[in-house]
Amino acid sequence: MTEGPAAGPRFVLGVDSGGSGLRVALARVASGSAAEPCGVVASDEPVPTTGGGIDAGRLVARLLPAARRLLAEAGGSRVVAGCVGAAGMQTLGGRLRAELPEALATGLGARRLVLAADVVTGHVGALGGRPGAVVAAGTGLIALGLDGHHWRRADGWGHLLGDCGGGSWIGREGLTAALRAHDGRAGGSAALLARVEAVLGPAAGLPGLLYPRSDRPAWLAAFAPEVARCATAEPPDPVSVAILRAAAGEIAATAAAVCPPVAEPVIALTGGLLRLGEPLLRPLREELAARLPAATLVPAAGDPLHGALTLAARAAAGPLGLPEEPGLLSVHEVPAHDGRVAAR
Amino acid sequence: MTEGPAAGPRFVLGVDSGGSGLRVALARVASGSAAEPCGVVASDEPVPTTGGGIDAGRLVARLLPAARRLLAEAGGSRVVAGCVGAAGMQTLGGRLRAELPEALATGLGARRLVLAADVVTGHVGALGGRPGAVVAAGTGLIALGLDGHHWRRADGWGHLLGDCGGGSWIGREGLTAALRAHDGRAGGSAALLARVEAVLGPAAGLPGLLYPRSDRPAWLAAFAPEVARCATAEPPDPVSVAILRAAAGEIAATAAAVCPPVAEPVIALTGGLLRLGEPLLRPLREELAARLPAATLVPAAGDPLHGALTLAARAAAGPLGLPEEPGLLSVHEVPAHDGRVAAR
Repeated sequence: MTEGPAAGPRFVLGVDSGGSGLRVALARVASGSAAEPCGVVASDEPVPTTGGGIDAGRLVARLLPAARRLLAEAGGSRVVAGCVGAAGMQTLGGRLRAELPEALATGLGARRLVLAADVVTGHVGALGGRPGAVVAAGTGLIALGLDGHHWRRADGWGHLLGDCGGGSWIGREGLTAALRAHDGRAGGSAALLARVEAVLGPAAGLPGLLYPRSDRPAWLAAFAPEVARCATAEPPDPVSVAILRAAAGEIAATAAAVCPPVAEPVIALTGGLLRLGEPLLRPLREELAARLPAATLVPAAGDPLHGALTLAARAAAGPLGLPEEPGLLSVHEVPAHDGRVAAR
Repeated sequence: MTEGPAAGPRFVLGVDSGGSGLRVALARVASGSAAEPCGVVASDEPVPTTGGGIDAGRLVARLLPAARRLLAEAGGSRVVAGCVGAAGMQTLGGRLRAELPEALATGLGARRLVLAADVVTGHVGALGGRPGAVVAAGTGLIALGLDGHHWRRADGWGHLLGDCGGGSWIGREGLTAALRAHDGRAGGSAALLARVEAVLGPAAGLPGLLYPRSDRPAWLAAFAPEVARCATAEPPDPVSVAILRAAAGEIAATAAAVCPPVAEPVIALTGGLLRLGEPLLRPLREELAARLPAATLVPAAGDPLHGALTLAARAAAGPLGLPEEPGLLSVHEVPAHDGRVAAR
């Protein structure tokens, strides 16, 4: 493996590992910025988590063949730097930090490896490393802010402790309102009850449908589109409108908690919850304008895989120019002729 | 076994089977009303539920020896009637309805057996068969109303679909408010965050403490006393006060949904949540007064085991005088000299 300056194109590797699968991308770099990826290998199968955390061996075993295939297709033989963004990096990433740098140095020639939490690759993908706040809203909800010196997180506590305003939160509120109507309790929604009965069957059967499942948050979140549907019916269901207004308030409060104190902050929203569309986005713009009047809502420039490639390209060129924090973002260097790893 | 009119005292059997164990009581009856139990056998071990529902064979195997021991101690040889109140009777009680009447006729001479949901024995225990509403508030929350002709249920949907105002609901609201403060989101409570850190450790560890558990509702409910504690601190924590006020509103709304439309209805509150005391009971009295101004809050006369004995004594004397509904309350008669069971 060549250790001197590379002749021809220089490549970086980006990896996005999460609950919905594993994606590996290769990109050419030019003057420190990643070009569009020259190839992507995607799999729906997540990397398993064992008692010891994310299984580094299984990740490497899937990553190396994919990377080598992409390199061969692009006419390259090694990568100068890589970035692995992974869900659970903070709490479950111990083995990745211990094993991945050397494995990628040995297997792909990558002497610099960035390890990042998925919220960080999401932030860099959305805002390209600029200061600002990124809200990732899907089944759960988490926000990450960057002020140039620090990352700041809010929520992301899961469906029983937070994720306020996310998909499972909206779905749970909708189902609860349907059952209020079923019982004759105050605050119920006959419209939502009708949708429950149409898509899930008799209300009495709901506990038996939900509680035996292991993917309860996702099951709850699957009802969120019904809330949006009732909120835009003619006439609109006022309970559904209120649920989405409350969700918008929660999302705006979470964004405000991490938004950097700069003159004109930018905020990007990412994730599947945006597919609820205007019934959520209209109150969300209003709530954001009320809480963060100076902020500009911008479209996300790219996704977490794009963010991983950006971080890898920055690492290939020199310092990241972003705050490194244990578990959130770290750069690992493997000296030439020596397998030892140094975390900077 | 004597089938003619019994000489000497007549006995009835009451059974309370639920998630916290099994209790069996024997009482002498006089003119249709049960006296105080002459003996109780209690076990902390719940009767198991299998794929086919509550395991009738296991219940009988534990119930018969306990009943015979109580009979022997009281100087009796048979019971004239029994009542089994069980959690899950509605959805999981099929095998009890199929097997229990004959088993208790054969084993104890009981030719009339009442099968009741635990909410019904709770109602009869609390109000003695009078019309009114009973709210059972523990980890979960369910209300049952009786207007003389019908039972009416509200909530009891479990921690992800309802149980609004119950222990896990209050605990979850408290923990969420603590994490809002941790994140710097609006609506947080520094007082609750301090209690989280004192009793559960660093906030960052909460997801790891909660999500691996199978008893998540109970774990959430265990934090409810901390909310009551913060609500009565000097000065009171306004977020905790608001959580208990909201819980009181939910409980009152649930009671109102089942309260019979009579001139002066009675309402009883039962269950472990009452141990939160005045921080919950004060707003609850106010919310009930606002929603049900004609209703009188009465102390529960007895517990579900007491209710089971009352139902057994009524069955021994003649018709129950209460609405029988499949799964909620049914009387099963086993004719003499014949093992066949007739559900009335």
